[in-house]
Amino acid sequence: MTESNPAFCPYYHHAIELIGRRWTGAILRELLHGTARFSELRSAVPGLSDRLLSERLKELEAEKVVQRRVIPASPVRIEYVLTPKGRDLESVVNSLSEWAEAWVKPGLARAV
Amino acid sequence: MTESNPAFCPYYHHAIELIGRRWTGAILRELLHGTARFSELRSAVPGLSDRLLSERLKELEAEKVVQRRVIPASPVRIEYVLTPKGRDLESVVNSLSEWAEAWVKPGLARAV
Repeated sequence: MTESNPAFCPYYHHAIELIGRRWTGAILRELLHGTARFSELRSAVPGLSDRLLSERLKELEAEKVVQRRVIPASPVRIEYVLTPKGRDLESVVNSLSEWAEAWVKPGLARAV
Repeated sequence: MTESNPAFCPYYHHAIELIGRRWTGAILRELLHGTARFSELRSAVPGLSDRLLSERLKELEAEKVVQRRVIPASPVRIEYVLTPKGRDLESVVNSLSEWAEAWVKPGLARAV
């Protein structure tokens, strides 16, 4: 496959399909900004439901991008934090944010 | 909304939902590597069907990320090339490729 197809990379493909899943990119950006609690994450991303947030966090946990922490307080507090693997996505999120600022923002501004 | 929600950015959200759509990330990576013809793109991305490739290219054209060029040869040749907006996604694709190489590759290698 590599001979006829030098550009295709299964690791990249896995990565883009992971972070590109609906809402995941927005959730990652919030986590990078330090948002840690379920209810904060949900309210930080307009349109995101409890069910989908929960599903996405479970996927990110399974991929070891996010760690779920139980804080032994009263009542018990649950926090979601990025692992080193997750924090390392910061450069991707920053690159895409810059691209969006340069190219998406002017287009959407023209559309309204 | 900006007060309670400093991290959420609708431009970033639009961008990640665009490039994260199923197959779009892989198609963009091929286009960045210079693959230009429909049949080449299709065979470069394993599992991608004609119908989905055509749909994704139309979406990228609508977003002005890709330009469809008709080359007046015999028979007429159609090529898909990145616009400046599209080429500017190179840093995003490169960042994510590096991340995938560092974090996804070892995990998938362990899994097989």
